[in-house]
Order: sequence, then structure tokens, then C-alpha cells
Amino acid sequence: MNLTRTVRFLLLLAIVAIVSQANVAASPMKHTEVEQAIGPILLALIVIILTAKFGADLAVRVGQPPVLGELALGLIIGNITLFGFYGFDFIRTNQVVSMLAEIGVVLLLFEVGLESNLKEMTKVGPSSFLVAAVGVVAPFVLGFGVARTLLPQHSVYSHVFIGAVLCATSVGITARVLKDLGKLHLVESRIILGAAVIDDVMGLVVIAIVQGIIKAADGAGSLTGLGMAIIVAKAIGFLVGSVVIGQLLAPRVFRFASKLKAHDLLLGVSLAICFLFAYIADRIGLAAIVGAFAAGLILDEVHYEDFTARGERGLEDLLRPITSFLVPVFFILMGMRVRLEVFGDLPTLAFAGALTAAAIIGKQVCAFGALGKGLDRTLIGFGMIPRGEVGLIVAAIGAGMVLHGERIVDSMTFSAVVIMVMLTTFVTPPLLRWRMGRVSPKR
Amino acid sequence: MNLTRTVRFLLLLAIVAIVSQANVAASPMKHTEVEQAIGPILLALIVIILTAKFGADLAVRVGQPPVLGELALGLIIGNITLFGFYGFDFIRTNQVVSMLAEIGVVLLLFEVGLESNLKEMTKVGPSSFLVAAVGVVAPFVLGFGVARTLLPQHSVYSHVFIGAVLCATSVGITARVLKDLGKLHLVESRIILGAAVIDDVMGLVVIAIVQGIIKAADGAGSLTGLGMAIIVAKAIGFLVGSVVIGQLLAPRVFRFASKLKAHDLLLGVSLAICFLFAYIADRIGLAAIVGAFAAGLILDEVHYEDFTARGERGLEDLLRPITSFLVPVFFILMGMRVRLEVFGDLPTLAFAGALTAAAIIGKQVCAFGALGKGLDRTLIGFGMIPRGEVGLIVAAIGAGMVLHGERIVDSMTFSAVVIMVMLTTFVTPPLLRWRMGRVSPKR
Repeated sequence: MNLTRTVRFLLLLAIVAIVSQANVAASPMKHTEVEQAIGPILLALIVIILTAKFGADLAVRVGQPPVLGELALGLIIGNITLFGFYGFDFIRTNQVVSMLAEIGVVLLLFEVGLESNLKEMTKVGPSSFLVAAVGVVAPFVLGFGVARTLLPQHSVYSHVFIGAVLCATSVGITARVLKDLGKLHLVESRIILGAAVIDDVMGLVVIAIVQGIIKAADGAGSLTGLGMAIIVAKAIGFLVGSVVIGQLLAPRVFRFASKLKAHDLLLGVSLAICFLFAYIADRIGLAAIVGAFAAGLILDEVHYEDFTARGERGLEDLLRPITSFLVPVFFILMGMRVRLEVFGDLPTLAFAGALTAAAIIGKQVCAFGALGKGLDRTLIGFGMIPRGEVGLIVAAIGAGMVLHGERIVDSMTFSAVVIMVMLTTFVTPPLLRWRMGRVSPKR
Repeated sequence: MNLTRTVRFLLLLAIVAIVSQANVAASPMKHTEVEQAIGPILLALIVIILTAKFGADLAVRVGQPPVLGELALGLIIGNITLFGFYGFDFIRTNQVVSMLAEIGVVLLLFEVGLESNLKEMTKVGPSSFLVAAVGVVAPFVLGFGVARTLLPQHSVYSHVFIGAVLCATSVGITARVLKDLGKLHLVESRIILGAAVIDDVMGLVVIAIVQGIIKAADGAGSLTGLGMAIIVAKAIGFLVGSVVIGQLLAPRVFRFASKLKAHDLLLGVSLAICFLFAYIADRIGLAAIVGAFAAGLILDEVHYEDFTARGERGLEDLLRPITSFLVPVFFILMGMRVRLEVFGDLPTLAFAGALTAAAIIGKQVCAFGALGKGLDRTLIGFGMIPRGEVGLIVAAIGAGMVLHGERIVDSMTFSAVVIMVMLTTFVTPPLLRWRMGRVSPKR
């Protein structure tokens, strides 16, 4: 590792830190009286950009995908509070930064969707479905077993909830790694992406069932078959509808837009479509990124050839600067939000270790759902490992539920879930990188 | 005007509105429990993008700069509350949208700075300085006079404050129009941009003096000569320092960055520099956009030829998609924030009219500060017309000050200031466009 580079990075950060701490703002005219201050946002963006670039540099030098460097350096920046420096701490909790990160990951999945092709995706549909289904059942069973064994004093409802936490794959990390490595075209990649989308729908159902069971046990209400059916119908309706309607409307929308007398119409219209799909998915209860991915899938170069034919740049070219600005915000923030303090408690760590093992093994099993010969099932299993926000959200719902005086997810369990999310996140990029190195030279 | 287009736009907006109102969010899994909801932000971005593109289209079709269309259609969308539809009303006050707008205008001025050239700017330095100086004094005197004549019952301090409100030019609109028309290279454009920067520094000083006088009159403290000197020294120190240090360091920073093993380094490093300058300017009390403009000024193509030489795209090419995404957020929001209700009160309207006249005439006078032959002074005067946030901020400060039981800026005066800001904003694009049509064919 090049020391000068590290020293320069630390020096730069130190300068930023000093500027941010120096009380130069003694001016009589504050431009910030009317609105929220822009200062902290600018500072956050500077820190994030520098960290992202140096992190990516370090990762690439040790043969890892850039995203691992972003996560790792983000983790370090996020935990310098342990050394008593709190100047960057606001970044972790700033709402604007957090929304920029969300927009970033939405655009990342849109980009990934654009690079994927609907026809190719449908081909692997059955494989994706099986991978997703096994990938929901196996981790659920394993998580349930781990909780039952290690936390026998908790109620069975608590065990069921922990099983549910392990179900949903967080496709952001995997998509980013596959994209960084230029391997989105592999059959395995398509199976993973498809499974992640279906996974999200199944996750919805699992959570609805689990919540319904617990509410029923508490006498607070019960989950009707109709309620369940509506949830599933909405999600499937969105996915099918977006593909069908989207395919029909996209060419018309672009043709119409190409006649407008405004600049940058291709980018503007595409972003509007991406955000619209993400918005609808979010409102239905799916992840916004699933909507963005669907939007990317249905948009095809033929749809906007009116623009490219007159010499404008392609959509992926136009998106690239925006994603290279916003996507790292998501991963740096993800790294920064890791609290090293949670690793301090041994029983928690032990439980977290067991949970992580269940999470990883559960998704290795699911790879056998992939149909066809010559597939690298290990690669598929690795790609399905990351758990992210959805797991945390489920755990948070559980933490908010009380049954017969017992919290369904207590604080120790919640910390263990957090650690599991971190470990599955950090372990995925090197695993994928390593496996790719063995598989991809062939293709 | 093409009716189908308008109908289609209304139809699209209606669909977005219906989707946003439909209560489809009955799902058990909310992805929003941990963080702020992404839904409203996505909805806001969809509305903003559609409005921006249609607004630009309409403006161009009637021979106006796109920004006027963005402002006007933003105004309409922002005031459909008058018809009882409140579905888009959150956009006006959403903090994340407002910060995206701020980042947008920071990047716009960075872009404008990049298109400008430090050497060329220094050439027009004396002209810019004189234009700025006269452009602070003349509107101040006129504003003071208007207030003294029309509001004789108010104290002299109130009159002084109203004079101060009229001083600072808001360069965002003008910069955008000049950029849209491709006229940033004109001598007049450079004089305007330079004057706007110097203007901002002078505005600082004026506000410091006025606040000092009033505080002294109230016995609450007084403005020392030293305090004043420090404010001025900081602002000038920043401008000079950024140019000198920036020119020295920029090539080294880029050379160093070109050796890092990460993607999109040119864009990342440039954005970091832009945000750093904007951040420092903001902390000193200058507008963040002045810092961003300075950052753009010192960056030159020669600095990053390490990147372009190896076939990467130029910085302006890379910035373009980001600004085309974020800049309209600023102008649409500016339009949306216009409250048509304020035009309802006749005495307020009359006072606002007089203020607006003072604001416009004051900046026409300043154009005579421009040195040299063959300059179109009317164009310079037009370019200096817009008043923006700074005027509103000064008025807000005044609204918060009470002297001998009288509010320095009462609510009627504040409304008049708001109307003046609107009128100067909306009048500038067509004026510049019209004058350009007469001047620029020659060049």
C-alpha cells in the first residue's frame, strides 16, 4: 500500500476537518436564515467524495471491487468518533445526505436495469423464481433454528421474526460489484438480479404473514386471506403491469419527447420514468430500487433512437456522471453507519455469528434452485448473501411489537441483526471478486 | 401554442397527482420506518422534471429563454393550491428538495465559472468593480428615497434597511440566461459576472453597516471599525486567496488524482473542489455560489489534461447531465415559491411597484460604471436587475429587528420586497433575450 497516498488523504481530511471546525462564520449576513443551511451538506459531500475516491483506489490496489473500499473507508470515517472527533458525525444522520444516498441507489439499479435486457431476464425467470423461493425458505428455517437453539427463553414468535429477518436479499451491493467488474451480462448475474426482485415480493408476503400471526396471537386483529391476496396481487400487478404497459408506452413517450424544444430531454424523460416506477413501487410497499430496476429493464435503446440518431449521447453515457456522483454517497453512508461499538458484547457477537452463518448458508442452499447446466452455483449463492435495509426494517418492526409483555425483538437481538447485516455486506464484494476470478476468464 | 402538448402535460400531471393521492400504501412493510420517506422526494422530482421540460419547451416556442418557462410553469404548479389541490404543495417546503435546488445552483455557477476564464475576467475587473459599486450605491439611494416618500410614518432606520435590500444582485438567473443563449463569452457578460461577485462582497459590508447602525441606535452594541475591517478582509482574502492558491494547487491536485486507481476521478475531484470553495464562501458569509464560481474560474482545461489526454471526456461534458438534472430544481422551486396571494393588496402592490422601479433604475445607472467603448450598457444594466435570496434575507433580518417598539421591516414592507424579487426575476430573461437579439448578431 502506498503510504504517501494514505498520508495525503489523511492530510486532506484534516484540512477539511479544520476548516469545518474553525469558527469563521462570524459574519453578519447569514445566507441560511430562510432555509436549511447548505454548509453541512457541502461539507458532507466533500468528505464523501474524497473518501469514496481514496477508498476505491485502495480497494483496487489490493484487487478488490471499489465498493469494498468505499464501505471500509466509510466505516473508518464513521467511527473516528471513537477517537473523540465528532466533526463528521452529522453526516450519518443528516436527512438530506441520506436522501441523496437513496436517490443514488435508485439510479444505480436503474442503470443496472438498463444494462440488462428484458428478454434475457425472462429466459432465466424460472431459475430466478426457484432461487428466490428457496432463498426465502432456507434462511427462514435456519434463522428460526438458530434463534430457537440460542434463545430458548424467547417466545416462538420471536424466533419466527428472526427467521423472517433473514429472508430478503439486498441487491445493491451485488449489483454494484457485478457492474464494477463488468459482469452484468453473465447468466448467473441475471439469475441473481431476477431472484432479488422476486425475493422482495416474497419478503413482503413473509412479513405480512408473520405480523399477522403475531397480531392474531395478541388478539389485536388477524390477517385475512383477502388482505394477503391483495398485497401479493399489488406487487405482482406492478411488476407485470410495468413490463406490459411500459413496453407499450415507452416508445410513444420518447417519440413525443423528441419533438419538444427543450435540452436534455432524453435524460430528463428517462429520469422521470425511473423515479415514477420507483415511486409506485415504494407506495405499493416494494423497495424503490425494485421499481427503478424494472424501469431500466423496459427501456431499450430502440425506444430512444430518435435522440441518438440525431447525434445525442446514449442514455448510459448521460447517467454515468450522475451515478458516479450519487452512488458512492449510498455506500459511504452504509459504511459510516456501522457502529463498531456493537461488536463489544460477547453474547451478542456469538448470536450474531450464528445468525450470519445461517444467513450465508441459507443463500448457498438457494443456488441449487438455478436450472440449467454449467452454471456456477457458488457465484449465485454469493451474490444472494447481502442483507440490508429490509432486514433492518423487519427487525425494527419486531422491536416495536410487544406480545404478552415481551418485546418480539429485544435490543440484544437487534444488535445481532445489525452485525449480521454488516458482515453479509462486507463479505460479499471480496467473495464475488474471488469467485469471478475463477469463473469469468472462461467467458 | 400547441394545444395537444399542453393537454398532454396536464394529463401527465393529473396521472402523477392521482397516483400520489391514491391510497395504495396499505402494505404491511414500510421501507420508511428507519429513514425519512423517499416517496415524496421521488414524486417531487417527477413533477419538477416534467414541469421543467414542458416549461422550457413553451418558452423556446415563444422565443424566450428556457428558464423563463421553468419559472412561469413553476409558478402555476406552485399556485394550483388556489384551485384547492394541495398534492404538490409539500414540494415548496420540503428540505431535501430545497437542498437539491441549492446544490443545483451551486453547480450552475461552477459551470459558468468553468466557461469563463480568469485572465479575461481580470481584464474587465475595473469595469466590474465600478459597475458593482454604482450598483450598490444607486439602488440604495433610490430605495431609501422611495421608502422615505411612501412610508413617511416609518423611522429612518426602516428606510435605510429598505435601501439595503435593493443592493445585491442575484446572479443565478442572469448566468442561466447568458448560458442558455450561449453568450457567456461577451465582454458584457463577463462584466456582469464579475460585478455580481464584487456586489456580493459589498452587500456583506452594507448589511454589516446597517445592522451596526441600528444596533447602536438601540444601545444593543455597536459596529467597530475593526469588526467591519475583519468582514471585508475575510471576503477579499477568500477571493484573492482562492485565485492564488487555487491556481497553484489545482494542477498538482489533478496530477495526483490522475494516478489514483478509481473511476470518474476528474468529475469527483472537480466536484470536491467546487463544493469546498462553496463551503468556505458560505462559512465566510458570502454566497455559496460565489465560491462555486471562483472554483470554476480557477479550473482550466490545462489542469486536467492528464485525464483528457487519455481519452476521458472533458469536465463540462461530465457536469452537463448533473446540472441538467439539478439546475431546473432551483428555478422550478423559485417559481413555485411565488405566492400569488401577495398580489392581492393594493397599497402593498403600489409600494412594491415603486420598489421594483427603484431596483431596476438603480441597476441601469450602474451600467455607466463599465469602462470602454462599444459596450452595450443597457445589456449590462438588464443583467444586473435580478434580486434574489440576498434581498429576502436582508428583509428577513429586518423583520426580526425591533427598534423602539417598531419592527424595522413590517409585514407589508416584507410582502412588497417579495413582489419586487419576483418581478425583477421574471422580467430579466425576456429583457436579456430581447436586448441580445439586437446586440449579438454583430458578434
